[in-house]
Amino acid sequence: MQHLTIDGDRLWATLMRSAEIGPGKAGGLKRLAASDEDKKMRDQFADWCSDAGLIITVDRLGNMFARREGTEDNLPPVTMGSHLDTQYAGGRFDGILGVLTGLEIVRTLNDREIVTKRPIEVVNWTNEEGCRFSPSMCCSGAFAGVYDADWVANREDDEGFKQGEELERIGYRGPSEVGGRNLDSYFELHIEQGPMLHAAGEFLGVVTKGAKTHGMHVDVQGVTSHAGPTPMMERHDALAGAARVIAAVNDIGLQYHNSGGRATASRVIAWPNKPGILAEWAQFSVDCRHPDPAIANAMRADIEESIRQAADKNMVTMEIVSRWEFGDETFSIDLSDLIRKHADAQGVKCRDMMSLAGHDAYYVSKVAPAVLIFSPCADGITHNESESIDLESTLPAVNVLLNSVVARANR
Amino acid sequence: MQHLTIDGDRLWATLMRSAEIGPGKAGGLKRLAASDEDKKMRDQFADWCSDAGLIITVDRLGNMFARREGTEDNLPPVTMGSHLDTQYAGGRFDGILGVLTGLEIVRTLNDREIVTKRPIEVVNWTNEEGCRFSPSMCCSGAFAGVYDADWVANREDDEGFKQGEELERIGYRGPSEVGGRNLDSYFELHIEQGPMLHAAGEFLGVVTKGAKTHGMHVDVQGVTSHAGPTPMMERHDALAGAARVIAAVNDIGLQYHNSGGRATASRVIAWPNKPGILAEWAQFSVDCRHPDPAIANAMRADIEESIRQAADKNMVTMEIVSRWEFGDETFSIDLSDLIRKHADAQGVKCRDMMSLAGHDAYYVSKVAPAVLIFSPCADGITHNESESIDLESTLPAVNVLLNSVVARANR
Repeated sequence: MQHLTIDGDRLWATLMRSAEIGPGKAGGLKRLAASDEDKKMRDQFADWCSDAGLIITVDRLGNMFARREGTEDNLPPVTMGSHLDTQYAGGRFDGILGVLTGLEIVRTLNDREIVTKRPIEVVNWTNEEGCRFSPSMCCSGAFAGVYDADWVANREDDEGFKQGEELERIGYRGPSEVGGRNLDSYFELHIEQGPMLHAAGEFLGVVTKGAKTHGMHVDVQGVTSHAGPTPMMERHDALAGAARVIAAVNDIGLQYHNSGGRATASRVIAWPNKPGILAEWAQFSVDCRHPDPAIANAMRADIEESIRQAADKNMVTMEIVSRWEFGDETFSIDLSDLIRKHADAQGVKCRDMMSLAGHDAYYVSKVAPAVLIFSPCADGITHNESESIDLESTLPAVNVLLNSVVARANR
Repeated sequence: MQHLTIDGDRLWATLMRSAEIGPGKAGGLKRLAASDEDKKMRDQFADWCSDAGLIITVDRLGNMFARREGTEDNLPPVTMGSHLDTQYAGGRFDGILGVLTGLEIVRTLNDREIVTKRPIEVVNWTNEEGCRFSPSMCCSGAFAGVYDADWVANREDDEGFKQGEELERIGYRGPSEVGGRNLDSYFELHIEQGPMLHAAGEFLGVVTKGAKTHGMHVDVQGVTSHAGPTPMMERHDALAGAARVIAAVNDIGLQYHNSGGRATASRVIAWPNKPGILAEWAQFSVDCRHPDPAIANAMRADIEESIRQAADKNMVTMEIVSRWEFGDETFSIDLSDLIRKHADAQGVKCRDMMSLAGHDAYYVSKVAPAVLIFSPCADGITHNESESIDLESTLPAVNVLLNSVVARANR
């Protein structure tokens, strides 16, 4: 078997150019979905794709598909991708590596004048992070039919801007309908976002399962009154109620920690949220995840019980206004075996792994054979501007992906 | 003794004109300190004062002193006042009644061509509420030497605007130094902000003591990371830590409820405060109050212990970045007796009361004889847009104040 290899320096230069667009405050990135910085990165990506001879299609949710023709071009495309948006305090590689590796693989095929039988597409999914417009992975979710595309377009950020209108504003509310594209297969390369590969000195993981994840937004309704005279037993304090649940969620996470559970409430907004006056309204976001879906369900039930108890205790009403879940989707055995075969042929050790984070591949797996592979990130640090990878530890996974994609596209 | 009376309809019309400036969303007011709405109200108040022949002095913190000459005009003035700013969801009378009653008393003296021996001044203290720029009562506090005036001018709101610059912007950063004015006496009429007078069908209270109140802002420092993979035991989650304290403060308030204690944390801000990423920073505001200063101190100690425990539990650092206290100041026995004497003469029942809320009179009492009197408010509801009073229940306190002020100014 002949092993193709990409141009590592070119890949790194491409990543470093991306790392200049939407700089954070500490060396990472703040490139929120449908922001001006997202537009600048999308324009750069589109320019690179045009230079590589790719034709870009954009759907109504800004998902970008950059297509390289095959010799039998009416066959469904082999796709690779991930996302170019980041967290508020995000790293330079989370998601970005998967998209720009796809671009580099296409450039490599161009350099070698390799034309595959099936077309190849590189995908940039809109708003994987879900930090500006919640929930996460909502645009690959809409592609896969998990969410209604109009519902996703109407998601608002905390300033009241709608996702669809913001995509329109930056010029990426495209003409194509969301979904309905027939994909031969979907390959997603992502940094691990955990410490295992780095700690083991290994370079490639195949994700065989995800952690079952439940998420929800909860609205709290109370009554404003004076923080001084109002007797404790006559208060309907929305923020106190929300805080009680946030603390309980943290306790629930700690309670299930030993078996691999996590529970988080990392966002709360309240009104008026000022000294001297009790809040009449609050909203908070919660998620919990566990490798065992039954235990994840039990954690969700514990959280819902803590919501009932806090609402009683603080004499407020609490309503779960939206829910989401992911993580128990099944990845393609064929594609996983293909990755393992090329890893073996290239002498790259490949371990089966679980993912605790959500990824677009979960949702895409509902409508196409999909595989998710990991490369190491330093100390597992992510969603932090100090997130870091090195090229040498990344190239093995990239080259396994390159050869697997070519094989798949020529089958 | 001849009883003077004010023009009730004119007072009500003046209050209702104020109630049009900075309307809230539910019939009340949102007229935050140094906002455009505050400027509009100040301009209206200044116009009314000019029409009544008063000369206005504005100090460097926007405190407004509207002066009516006395026959011995070099004597220190008898002052009346309160504040014209409101909470985010504030009522139409909290503070406002005290300032506009002062104006109405001056108008009454003008109508009757009564000139007092000592000058009379009506005062509007800036930012009593402390909801935009914390802490509360900071500008009367600076007047009384409790706070440094430059420190108060540098207080920032949650958007980063400084109080002094905002006062400059609206034209109320005056030329006079803060403090150093010799006051003969200070009378503050305020709605009770509690249910007692209304429930008893009484119309006047003299505040003989306040609840000892401690307040603080607490900064929390954590580390951003991914809400998914990051193990619970490796998290430094600033929001979870803050929520733990907010819930504990609520518990501490409930614990001391039976003896009259209150504890509140009604504001929290965090960054990034988004789904999917742990917060690296949070700040929250806490206060506790109790009629017994020793118990208030114990409550503060309990809160500080809850801060230490939460910091340990969530592996974050917490720092108390500012503190304030008030409530154990002593009001003037002479002025209280004067109020009681005129109440008795006018057949108005007057009860001694405690105040759980903070008022400018606390701080002014440190530099001048001061008295704080209450009129009823419906059901004790306040810091809520449905706050309400009726004229008939308010006039007794207003007319007692009128006659007391005239007597004091002529002594």
